[in-house]
Amino acid sequence: MFKSLKIATINCKIKYKNRDDLLLVIFDKDVAVAGVFTDSATRAPSVIHCQKNIVNHLARALIVNAGNANAFTGIKGRKIVSNVVKKIAETIDCDVNKIFMSSTGVIGELFDDKLITDNIPKMVNDAQFSPIMIEKAAKSIMTTDTKMKLIFKKCKIGNSEIELFGFIKGSGMISPNMATMLGYIFTNATIDGSILQELLNQATNISFNNISVDGDKSTNDTILAFATNDIDHLKINNINDDAFMDFKEAFFDLAIAMAKMVVIDGEGATKLIELDVVNAKNKKQAKNVAMSVINSPLIKSAIAAADPNWGRIIMAIGKADNKINPNKIKLKIGDFLITENGTRISDYNEQLVHHYLKNQEVRINIDLGYNFNKYTNKIAKNDNKIRVWGCDLNESYVTINKDYRS
Amino acid sequence: MFKSLKIATINCKIKYKNRDDLLLVIFDKDVAVAGVFTDSATRAPSVIHCQKNIVNHLARALIVNAGNANAFTGIKGRKIVSNVVKKIAETIDCDVNKIFMSSTGVIGELFDDKLITDNIPKMVNDAQFSPIMIEKAAKSIMTTDTKMKLIFKKCKIGNSEIELFGFIKGSGMISPNMATMLGYIFTNATIDGSILQELLNQATNISFNNISVDGDKSTNDTILAFATNDIDHLKINNINDDAFMDFKEAFFDLAIAMAKMVVIDGEGATKLIELDVVNAKNKKQAKNVAMSVINSPLIKSAIAAADPNWGRIIMAIGKADNKINPNKIKLKIGDFLITENGTRISDYNEQLVHHYLKNQEVRINIDLGYNFNKYTNKIAKNDNKIRVWGCDLNESYVTINKDYRS
Repeated sequence: MFKSLKIATINCKIKYKNRDDLLLVIFDKDVAVAGVFTDSATRAPSVIHCQKNIVNHLARALIVNAGNANAFTGIKGRKIVSNVVKKIAETIDCDVNKIFMSSTGVIGELFDDKLITDNIPKMVNDAQFSPIMIEKAAKSIMTTDTKMKLIFKKCKIGNSEIELFGFIKGSGMISPNMATMLGYIFTNATIDGSILQELLNQATNISFNNISVDGDKSTNDTILAFATNDIDHLKINNINDDAFMDFKEAFFDLAIAMAKMVVIDGEGATKLIELDVVNAKNKKQAKNVAMSVINSPLIKSAIAAADPNWGRIIMAIGKADNKINPNKIKLKIGDFLITENGTRISDYNEQLVHHYLKNQEVRINIDLGYNFNKYTNKIAKNDNKIRVWGCDLNESYVTINKDYRS
Repeated sequence: MFKSLKIATINCKIKYKNRDDLLLVIFDKDVAVAGVFTDSATRAPSVIHCQKNIVNHLARALIVNAGNANAFTGIKGRKIVSNVVKKIAETIDCDVNKIFMSSTGVIGELFDDKLITDNIPKMVNDAQFSPIMIEKAAKSIMTTDTKMKLIFKKCKIGNSEIELFGFIKGSGMISPNMATMLGYIFTNATIDGSILQELLNQATNISFNNISVDGDKSTNDTILAFATNDIDHLKINNINDDAFMDFKEAFFDLAIAMAKMVVIDGEGATKLIELDVVNAKNKKQAKNVAMSVINSPLIKSAIAAADPNWGRIIMAIGKADNKINPNKIKLKIGDFLITENGTRISDYNEQLVHHYLKNQEVRINIDLGYNFNKYTNKIAKNDNKIRVWGCDLNESYVTINKDYRS
């Protein structure tokens, strides 16, 4: 049970006329909060407000508006944020530094903050907790997402049953303007804010940071995690507590599932690509190679056509790091080994790989071969790997993003 | 006059059936050569052969085949290169380290090197110099390029008239497989190989390195410059000689014109984008920002639609370097100032910018504002700038690259 979390949504008409586009989550008491944010130099004032206050790890409310990112809006944009958080703080009687805000939508356009503030008293009054309200919350933050992205999980801390849920909106860049990844995770567990932050950082490194729709990064990207401390369970003293393992796994699974939902709903995407880079020289090389492959428009286009155009993957690997030994690269598509010893294997069957690539989820595995100890001539353990997710590239991506803003 | 340069082309049928796809340029004597090459870890054996021999700066022949990149082809691929250069060296009686080779086309497929070597005696015999042969050369290296890319220039060293010409094939990635930028510059001037190399390095930094079609980089990219030493002019002792200035300018202009031709012929491109980043903190920041903007599929799609979606440009700047002060960014599209003081200017007229973006060549100027001396409160001189070129992104890019290889 979530005892202290309440949700309200409303159509505030900043942009959308016929759907809820404003979300308010309020907590009856101080809850723990952790956050990760875009590091863009041109990030929005709502992000800057959150970054300033996340250090206290205390939250009483979250407000999210869809349809206007309030980014690159200068002094007036900063004033919108301060007016909104002040109004909420006054209404629920708490400090403004416990109010967190996100915005998503068009950049560089101002809006009248009264569209938000005038709705606050009613939303505070109407807020309630129910599965239907959680769905409404997940829907209210959407922009051009084609699907609501919401997941529930259960796990245990000691003998106590713990609940988690998370919802997210897409990073696929959108018409009329660029979009944002906004994700929110809620749990009723009792977790210290600094442990929650450490957990969110670890989760982000294997989920939200490892997805790519088009390689662009928004001014407003934000992930916030809230622990409402509603359950009286075994105390968690640090992130490696044995009693915390089941929760940690559930939290990581939730984050990965949320991240994958964003990719699958990428603009024009028809396939999910899961890419592993293993046996890299170091973690950085693994990430560089993975991102070079997953962001390549050539590879993404080929996969859209189920074309096993493995030469493009070799190109993207070579481009990422010119110190890689081409003779060590083992490339697999699905379970099919394609290259070894610096060339294509001799009994390669292109038709089988073509057939495999018609699946909606395709896996690519790149082994960079840095697990060979040249002194002992033996295979050595190598933990320098990464798993990332991306999507294919279709004409409709361009069509969506070409549309002149109306 | 080019006295010692001869050209032959032929249809060798590695891939194409009805057009010349093999180019041989031979020099009657040792000429000066300089080169720049892809730094891909998976570069082709022809590139590795050139890199090994460029240090001597001496050439007697250049051979280029279109239709097969001979990349990621292992030991057998290396054997193709050694057989080809050996055959040419034997036929014209010189050392193999004076023969330069490039290949472009499909990756990872072997071909029978006899398709090249059997043609060498006839090509050596038939080779001649004429404007028509130069055109044939420019055409023979094309893959999916839609246009031949050839330019002639004249200039002076002292009182002597000097000729230059260059041809290039596209970097736009192609079906059935990834492409390559291959460019060749020839001059009849008398220039020392090491000075020619320095000149080519400088030229590359303001031309071939500053273009982007899709951010991908080939296994075979190569630019070679040859000086045939046919003219007896004022001796050039170093790259900053006064007598060298006119030649230098012509060489730079030629390189920039060649690079721009590649971008304009980018797959599916309809517009050339010329982007200046000025007043950056340093050259690296200028380049990072420029590449972030010019490679962004969101910005490229917007420009295809003549949509002045400047928020996407701000996003790409912010993404490139999170230390940039958003309040200092001055963004111009054409002559239209769009942002200052961290937001859109108040009298911005979107219709005018939309109209401007309908041009076939559009200019974007990003001033990062690092020219302000905070101690003296004055504008300081700042030479940290870069000019790059890119193209718009249209559905046909994806269509071309999705086509399953036939």
